[in-house]
Amino acid sequence: MAVYSYKINLSTKGFCDVHDITPQLREILSESGLREGLLSVILAGSTGGITTIEYEPGVLKDLAELLEKILPSSRSYHHDAAWGDGNGFSHLRSALIGTSMSIPFSSGKLILGTWQQVVFIDFDNRSRNRTLHVQLVGEK
Amino acid sequence: MAVYSYKINLSTKGFCDVHDITPQLREILSESGLREGLLSVILAGSTGGITTIEYEPGVLKDLAELLEKILPSSRSYHHDAAWGDGNGFSHLRSALIGTSMSIPFSSGKLILGTWQQVVFIDFDNRSRNRTLHVQLVGEK
Amino acid sequence: MAVYSYKINLSTKGFCDVHDITPQLREILSESGLREGLLSVILAGSTGGITTIEYEPGVLKDLAELLEKILPSSRSYHHDAAWGDGNGFSHLRSALIGTSMSIPFSSGKLILGTWQQVVFIDFDNRSRNRTLHVQLVGEK
Repeated sequence: MAVYSYKINLSTKGFCDVHDITPQLREILSESGLREGLLSVILAGSTGGITTIEYEPGVLKDLAELLEKILPSSRSYHHDAAWGDGNGFSHLRSALIGTSMSIPFSSGKLILGTWQQVVFIDFDNRSRNRTLHVQLVGEK
Repeated sequence: MAVYSYKINLSTKGFCDVHDITPQLREILSESGLREGLLSVILAGSTGGITTIEYEPGVLKDLAELLEKILPSSRSYHHDAAWGDGNGFSHLRSALIGTSMSIPFSSGKLILGTWQQVVFIDFDNRSRNRTLHVQLVGEK
Repeated sequence: MAVYSYKINLSTKGFCDVHDITPQLREILSESGLREGLLSVILAGSTGGITTIEYEPGVLKDLAELLEKILPSSRSYHHDAAWGDGNGFSHLRSALIGTSMSIPFSSGKLILGTWQQVVFIDFDNRSRNRTLHVQLVGEK
């Protein structure tokens, strides 16, 4: 049993910018040489989210519209009054979707469906350079 | 320390069909013989979800109504235009609720409340045969 | 590799009462002596939630308002008809936000952003004494 740590760097545009990180996660798992265990990925930040979705333009547009309906980016939030950076909606979307998830792997492969991608979504209101942290716990 | 992999097979009906998988998870933990560690369960798919809720008919009906309000199954989504399978709402509900969760165990028992069940919810618009993957990392 | 179990006790007020548990998680990690691995925290209960958010009064008020909009506490739910404890909204908020999350740690530090706190939110409609369970899997 061993633990391995990796990072994924992304340049993001904000406003529900969705990045498919499945290829990077598969590469990381392959590099680690681990065969059986658990992968955990987290954003060290409070204005993005991690979940799974089919990485297909239509449904990604639907997701952006859903979040816009529940948490409009044009509205003013109490958070904005406190800080003035105008990204209250980004913080709330992040708390709702969540900033981490765990994915088991077996026989050296991530357990995911064919149409299921792990995505990082940047909810912020500006471009960012993001670092995701990936931790693997398992055995060879 | 060791890793064990298991599967749970379910026949589901779709349209917010909720299955209590707590008994299967307890049986898996017992079979593994592990006493201390972490259990992770995931749906390898993009139209279902995993969360915890009291498995009681009233609140399950409430959950279905909540999701119907936020993401109506009768509406048309961009995803539907792309694929024509009419389950855009299923994909969005899945991304919102999440497809995996981790549950610690100690002294050979899952750490869950009395009224808290781990559930798989099938959000799809048709019957399915589903496989959930359960990974245990821990020690005896 | 080893597994360690800890508990966090909280006195909560309900109605979206948010507690920053990051200091307790940091102390637990330090006590364990583990350097690399995965921390998992869960509520053994069905009327609270665990997520990350900036622990700042404005955004916490925004979060309470969001949940009040989606799942009003004043409405009657099917769950209330079944049990009569009037906390149907609490159960639904819990299922939506989730009751557990995993956070990787490396070099003896939790991987979290500067403005990102791990919070326990009590969604119930009364004061409670809550116990959160924290499990660490990793190596020194």
